[in-house]
Amino acid sequence: MAQRYEVRLSGSGGQGLVLGGVILAEAVALFEGINAVQTQSYGPEARGGASKSEVIISDESIDYPKATKIDLLLSLTQEACDKYSVDLKEGGILIADKRMVTKLPEGNYKVYHLPIIDTAKEKAGKVFVANIVALGAIAGLLDSVSIENVEKAVLQRVPKGTENLNRRALALGYELVT
Amino acid sequence: MAQRYEVRLSGSGGQGLVLGGVILAEAVALFEGINAVQTQSYGPEARGGASKSEVIISDESIDYPKATKIDLLLSLTQEACDKYSVDLKEGGILIADKRMVTKLPEGNYKVYHLPIIDTAKEKAGKVFVANIVALGAIAGLLDSVSIENVEKAVLQRVPKGTENLNRRALALGYELVT
Repeated sequence: MAQRYEVRLSGSGGQGLVLGGVILAEAVALFEGINAVQTQSYGPEARGGASKSEVIISDESIDYPKATKIDLLLSLTQEACDKYSVDLKEGGILIADKRMVTKLPEGNYKVYHLPIIDTAKEKAGKVFVANIVALGAIAGLLDSVSIENVEKAVLQRVPKGTENLNRRALALGYELVT
Repeated sequence: MAQRYEVRLSGSGGQGLVLGGVILAEAVALFEGINAVQTQSYGPEARGGASKSEVIISDESIDYPKATKIDLLLSLTQEACDKYSVDLKEGGILIADKRMVTKLPEGNYKVYHLPIIDTAKEKAGKVFVANIVALGAIAGLLDSVSIENVEKAVLQRVPKGTENLNRRALALGYELVT
């Protein structure tokens, strides 16, 4: 793993990206033993439609917890992709929802144009697990965390009674990239 | 309000402090229109028993989202208080749980030694709303956010069916300081 790895989850409010960031940070930190910081910024821009949550992963102590050179960007809406892809580094990974993001940013990125929301809705059966489907895809692409440890972190955080739904959503997302 | 106001919520894992931080940041940013950043750090120290969540509130853009000179510290366990009170600034506010924190740090602080956990357990009826009782007390002490806006933010984030329990927990916490 690189010394510092920056992940940004972006979409609209209500898509569960704060929870997604918390789960990813906990998977990495509590179960892989690597440092992580999860940050949610609310500025004037957050009062529009686009929302983001960031996770910095590092072997070393994390002194500056804001993402500035993103290694992996998830975008579940076009607005979020337009707004938050500017910091994606050259050669970085972009996971964009296939239905919601139709115009991809120009640049030298590894693009995964995936049916995240449709998978949540049609295969998992609930659109609100799109964040967990996305985590499955991220787990498949990140070297620093295993799908088993992301599942452990998911199960610690989701409401009781939704464990099987979330387990399935995670597996479906993982299958999209593996 | 000062230009930058730093809040740290500390206790043990499972006390809902991540959610508490998210709710406080959303109350301030979405309903008061002030900038906020919520950060959750997981380092080697997070794998012990103490856990923390931070919220920076500012009129201006927040470039450095880590708390370094805390204005208000909540501590729900002795271990968290011992560990995380070192950055509390002189004259800052310490809200410490009356049952769990028996040894208060030395220094020139405004100390509120409050029965947060007992209030959650005995008056609200559920120990797991201690984080919301604490938010009520914080809302009573912070100038930058009203109790009404904290309530709105609470109701956006808590599970369906628990609205009344959480509303009551918040009011009970507010009454502890007002």
